[in-house]
Amino acid sequence: MSSNAARVAGRHFLQIPGPTPVPDRILRAMDMPTIDHRGPEFQKLGKRVLEGMKSVFKTANPVIIYPASGTGAWEAALANVLSPGDKVLMFETGHFATLWKNMAIKLGLHPEFIGSDWRIGADADAIEARLREDKNHELKAVCVVHNETSTGCTSRIAEVRKAIDNAGHPALLLVDTISSLASIDYRHDEWGVDVTVSGSQKGLMLPPGLSFNAISPKALAAAKKSSMPKLFWSWEEMIPHNEKGFFPYTPGTNLLYGLAEAIDMLHEEGLDNVFARHDRHAEATRRAVRAWGLEILCRDPKYYSSVLTAVVMPEGHDADAFREKTLNHFDMSLGTGLTKLSGRVFRIGHLGDTNDLTILGALAGVEMGLSVAGVPHKKGGAQAAMDYLAECASGTLSAAA
Amino acid sequence: MSSNAARVAGRHFLQIPGPTPVPDRILRAMDMPTIDHRGPEFQKLGKRVLEGMKSVFKTANPVIIYPASGTGAWEAALANVLSPGDKVLMFETGHFATLWKNMAIKLGLHPEFIGSDWRIGADADAIEARLREDKNHELKAVCVVHNETSTGCTSRIAEVRKAIDNAGHPALLLVDTISSLASIDYRHDEWGVDVTVSGSQKGLMLPPGLSFNAISPKALAAAKKSSMPKLFWSWEEMIPHNEKGFFPYTPGTNLLYGLAEAIDMLHEEGLDNVFARHDRHAEATRRAVRAWGLEILCRDPKYYSSVLTAVVMPEGHDADAFREKTLNHFDMSLGTGLTKLSGRVFRIGHLGDTNDLTILGALAGVEMGLSVAGVPHKKGGAQAAMDYLAECASGTLSAAA
Amino acid sequence: MSSNAARVAGRHFLQIPGPTPVPDRILRAMDMPTIDHRGPEFQKLGKRVLEGMKSVFKTANPVIIYPASGTGAWEAALANVLSPGDKVLMFETGHFATLWKNMAIKLGLHPEFIGSDWRIGADADAIEARLREDKNHELKAVCVVHNETSTGCTSRIAEVRKAIDNAGHPALLLVDTISSLASIDYRHDEWGVDVTVSGSQKGLMLPPGLSFNAISPKALAAAKKSSMPKLFWSWEEMIPHNEKGFFPYTPGTNLLYGLAEAIDMLHEEGLDNVFARHDRHAEATRRAVRAWGLEILCRDPKYYSSVLTAVVMPEGHDADAFREKTLNHFDMSLGTGLTKLSGRVFRIGHLGDTNDLTILGALAGVEMGLSVAGVPHKKGGAQAAMDYLAECASGTLSAAA
Amino acid sequence: MSSNAARVAGRHFLQIPGPTPVPDRILRAMDMPTIDHRGPEFQKLGKRVLEGMKSVFKTANPVIIYPASGTGAWEAALANVLSPGDKVLMFETGHFATLWKNMAIKLGLHPEFIGSDWRIGADADAIEARLREDKNHELKAVCVVHNETSTGCTSRIAEVRKAIDNAGHPALLLVDTISSLASIDYRHDEWGVDVTVSGSQKGLMLPPGLSFNAISPKALAAAKKSSMPKLFWSWEEMIPHNEKGFFPYTPGTNLLYGLAEAIDMLHEEGLDNVFARHDRHAEATRRAVRAWGLEILCRDPKYYSSVLTAVVMPEGHDADAFREKTLNHFDMSLGTGLTKLSGRVFRIGHLGDTNDLTILGALAGVEMGLSVAGVPHKKGGAQAAMDYLAECASGTLSAAA
Repeated sequence: MSSNAARVAGRHFLQIPGPTPVPDRILRAMDMPTIDHRGPEFQKLGKRVLEGMKSVFKTANPVIIYPASGTGAWEAALANVLSPGDKVLMFETGHFATLWKNMAIKLGLHPEFIGSDWRIGADADAIEARLREDKNHELKAVCVVHNETSTGCTSRIAEVRKAIDNAGHPALLLVDTISSLASIDYRHDEWGVDVTVSGSQKGLMLPPGLSFNAISPKALAAAKKSSMPKLFWSWEEMIPHNEKGFFPYTPGTNLLYGLAEAIDMLHEEGLDNVFARHDRHAEATRRAVRAWGLEILCRDPKYYSSVLTAVVMPEGHDADAFREKTLNHFDMSLGTGLTKLSGRVFRIGHLGDTNDLTILGALAGVEMGLSVAGVPHKKGGAQAAMDYLAECASGTLSAAA
Repeated sequence: MSSNAARVAGRHFLQIPGPTPVPDRILRAMDMPTIDHRGPEFQKLGKRVLEGMKSVFKTANPVIIYPASGTGAWEAALANVLSPGDKVLMFETGHFATLWKNMAIKLGLHPEFIGSDWRIGADADAIEARLREDKNHELKAVCVVHNETSTGCTSRIAEVRKAIDNAGHPALLLVDTISSLASIDYRHDEWGVDVTVSGSQKGLMLPPGLSFNAISPKALAAAKKSSMPKLFWSWEEMIPHNEKGFFPYTPGTNLLYGLAEAIDMLHEEGLDNVFARHDRHAEATRRAVRAWGLEILCRDPKYYSSVLTAVVMPEGHDADAFREKTLNHFDMSLGTGLTKLSGRVFRIGHLGDTNDLTILGALAGVEMGLSVAGVPHKKGGAQAAMDYLAECASGTLSAAA
Repeated sequence: MSSNAARVAGRHFLQIPGPTPVPDRILRAMDMPTIDHRGPEFQKLGKRVLEGMKSVFKTANPVIIYPASGTGAWEAALANVLSPGDKVLMFETGHFATLWKNMAIKLGLHPEFIGSDWRIGADADAIEARLREDKNHELKAVCVVHNETSTGCTSRIAEVRKAIDNAGHPALLLVDTISSLASIDYRHDEWGVDVTVSGSQKGLMLPPGLSFNAISPKALAAAKKSSMPKLFWSWEEMIPHNEKGFFPYTPGTNLLYGLAEAIDMLHEEGLDNVFARHDRHAEATRRAVRAWGLEILCRDPKYYSSVLTAVVMPEGHDADAFREKTLNHFDMSLGTGLTKLSGRVFRIGHLGDTNDLTILGALAGVEMGLSVAGVPHKKGGAQAAMDYLAECASGTLSAAA
Repeated sequence: MSSNAARVAGRHFLQIPGPTPVPDRILRAMDMPTIDHRGPEFQKLGKRVLEGMKSVFKTANPVIIYPASGTGAWEAALANVLSPGDKVLMFETGHFATLWKNMAIKLGLHPEFIGSDWRIGADADAIEARLREDKNHELKAVCVVHNETSTGCTSRIAEVRKAIDNAGHPALLLVDTISSLASIDYRHDEWGVDVTVSGSQKGLMLPPGLSFNAISPKALAAAKKSSMPKLFWSWEEMIPHNEKGFFPYTPGTNLLYGLAEAIDMLHEEGLDNVFARHDRHAEATRRAVRAWGLEILCRDPKYYSSVLTAVVMPEGHDADAFREKTLNHFDMSLGTGLTKLSGRVFRIGHLGDTNDLTILGALAGVEMGLSVAGVPHKKGGAQAAMDYLAECASGTLSAAA
């Protein structure tokens, strides 16, 4: 339909790498009267979501739920375990790693930033090398973005853990899983992460407005020594109330209704099935990109993201002009290139509550958008994705038989 | 995903020829407290929907809204203008025309059924010929299904009107638009239809539960002479109350909230744009079917339906086995073959609140389903549809520029 | 708030005797995508509601669910077991009994109407006397309204059954429970009712749009001989499909979602608790009416309704003027006096999903409305109701201790 | 109904002083798909709510909307205009003023707390006296809670402003309106407030999850000098993005849908009508309390709150035991006594989207709860409230005539 149509029919294709489409079950769970957050009914809900989030982070330790969007949980992670003047080691996976680094500066920390070209995940070897140099253990924490939403590169957290251990370094490990949790396998305890940061609006399939810190005992101990001014983000305010199912200040009650539903849905599908589904859609998308003759931004398959694929535009073509045409003609939102990637890449989100046919509709939309926008490409991307997904389905069938 | 997955992720593809996907705006409009159907707030609503439906039927005459699903409005059409023992002329477009004929028998009417092979719409010439023979005007009504949902053949109502006029016959013209209204152009007054029957769950984008009779002055006059026992369906019970915005018995209040929203949405998009969108998706679907090397049930392009396409299965393959695999693997519902078409065709609905990317996702689902089910076909159907829709979008753009 | 306020704050008090306030759980259950009514997911739903309604009617025999409002189920009851020309015995409990009688005439039946003053339920003795006179068993059915919504008088169905048995008469017993089912105890099988008629928008707490026939084996046998023209209402069309969980024509899918939820909610509370709650609110209301010095329309406590209370206005005062002031000042809808009670009574609904505080708010609204409208009355009605409900609560507590 | 009933019928009475009942219109507005917060549709929404909130605060200056609950906006107010080590003057109106003071300490500020007995609002004379003593202007800010939710005392902000001016003191004025905004008249610009803090879940009728800072030019200037570490709360991050309708990090999209609806609803009713309605319900409640022979905690009518009324329990009776019985028997939540008022008071919220009949139902619930719990009191409280509201309605009527 053309851009001057008054009403656009059908359902919008929200193919940005988050917020993701919120399932009806979750929207309807949230669409209920707000209850007294100091009453017995709330208490049951509080216990349910606090316990449920542990299963999602794969941790036996406390999870904090903030009534605030994800940037807040970033700040919370830094503010609870660090003090102004502390040095931290960060890795430049892309735009969001850069924002987190800039936040650290605003909080009075001294981040050291291992540079990179925004086309890979965090390089564990580089981290290990830098930590080995830090004989006096001046670096208090290593901060890594698990899935860099601006580039579609996923860091290998288990390798980063091993790098720290190999270096014999006591730094805390802080990991941002805002765009990966509940989409890509993640293991807070097994991987020895000290603070995991996450948010509600991606793999958890909720609207934005909740964010999380999963905390190791080592992080809890570090928090006792932090001199960073804070109250809203303070774990020590939260934990005693959380133990009873309550919160020290007003929680995001209706979003918590949705969170309870989301946790149920993830377990109904099975986390491993959820991860496999994301892997499948990512592979289908990459096959489409290759068939179009376009380049995937992530240059090393080791770091491919199952959450989104960033696609490099051919020289002389503007990604945002293409995105605008795709939005106007096909009612689909794609992710923009951020800061230094502006105009040079577009991002296809393939995460959250989605399925094969929606992904194929989206890839068809990209292929038609390229055509309408006059971007040079070969046909057959959607076809390649379809062939792959049909094979997967056939395979699943034999396996099940 | 395999059929044994506990939760199926993403949004179901409901590609049956109705009920159609209900837009969120309509579901949310219905999700409001029921009001007093004898109070002033209801009265405003009643007037709004009764008037609004006239614009959808393109009539200046009364429209009746029944708090009952579509089969009821069929019965109402017959029961108001006919009397037990009356002869009526009906045309066998397919399963639904047959059901209507069977209903006529149950109501004590004597339907004469012009047979056909279920692969075309109503043949106006055959109707004219039969009416010319009926010198004594024993046939009191001609009953035609506008869009035969079981076959994907659309009758040309203006031609049927002309046939009756050419024959100089006084029979009433009764038309079923249950699956066509608000999807295919329809003109109650201009085409001289006496009773148009319709329902809520197709082009009107509502859940099932409301149905309609649009009535000509000639039909109203005929109703005065009907001796068919009835009350619930009786127009004369309805009309005096409707004039004030009320109903003689309890109306479907919450569905009426949705109907008001649906009428607004149709006009926001523009009825002509709605029709053009349906035409475009139908053509895209037919191109896919041809590319797969399969046969379209409708054998004459003059009767192609913009609402659904029935596809003939290759010999030796069961349409329902294919449909079941498609449902289990790709979470898409397709229409089954009805009675004599059982197992031999499947039907793709492309109507209601939908858009290019959803249709392409659906066609990809059919192509993958054919593959998974081992149905012989050529690849490239979804690609052919995509190429066509991309061309349309480019064309629209130039036109708009 | 005055009648010229643009937005009226807070929740409307819908104190008419139906439609009743729809609980959020039910509205939200309905606010979900419409599914394929021929698919496996629907089949589960179909079986669930068809079976569930048996538990509400207290029957082991089939229950029919029409996608139509209650008047349709009245027509269905008559049309399935009777034939044009049949004589039936009806009792004039009030406006709705009169409407049913008028419907019988429209259907070509010959109703005999035992007159009454609209201030009692059906008089079992009068029915027995008339049946004894009918030596040739010309009367084919006895039709009784269980709860007469226009008057607030409830008929004793077990006594009517006994009357028929005492007379040794083979007439069928047809009972309208549209405004009583799931509010007042009702036992289709135990009381030997042949057809029970009901609707969705009262005790079942749904919006209007579904209606019901519960059927005895004797009624099923009678249906075989009926010559009344019909299809939509025909049981024989329904029953074979229902046995598999399906329907012969498009069902009211989204209302069925709500019905499944409603049945669950009734059983979660317990039907006996539901009935006791209605009894309590009815008694509280009658105490308020007496304290105001006003007259209850129902003149014999034996027939008091637990669903609504009709209140007689003092001479020289118009009930509708009072109702309008109450609506404008206190945003509460009360029931109007129907036909011969027009202007002379108003009706307070105390049924469906309600509780003590809402009923007390409503009675306070009546008391203030009487005051604002200048209707002579004594203060203290709401106080009397409150005293009674506080006693009930204290008693419950001791009982539970 | 007793506490062991499985399902509690009817609608819960949420009579705590916030969160307040969320109107269906707002819940339904929120129950819609999340959109791309970097797209053109969001931009329109962003501009609409940012501009709309200015009308609610009565300011021409920027309003910040945080995707975080109210405690966050407290922290934001302090963190943006102050630096660690700064002295601030605060007034002990009650529990929430104390929490804010404790937060100031956590943030490294040095609050000076003017003590009080928790039974009045902020004493402007005491503030003026203290500021006059502060010759060196060491106090950088005066922090006052407009409506103290723990006590039901409302401070006179215009008087506090005057006190600061009389003292010729440059301190900033920071006001917490979390529980008063959109319930009690408030004028950010006219009263010369520098930072007004508020939240979504009280007068704005939303679920919790959004909070606000309204900012004066003087506050903006002060923010330039603040050395408090922060990013999430930082105004300078927000304002440049807000000017285009966007946010620097993920906003609470679905709550913003609700906020847009809430602003519309407030203006449809008219802010002055909203305030008058709250005043009326507060007066009705106080009349009930007095009739019961109980004491209102607020000891000076000058400070009476139109948002809630805290009621002192008779000696020897526990407020929480009474609250629990009221919840179990009548499904109504009342506010608990906080910290030093624990067990000694209960709080009746009469704010947000409510009306006369709901308030009377609630007061009836309190009166019955007192009776069931054996708390000594006189009957007639609900009656006194009802008499007052009936008078108001009659008066409105004459005025309108």
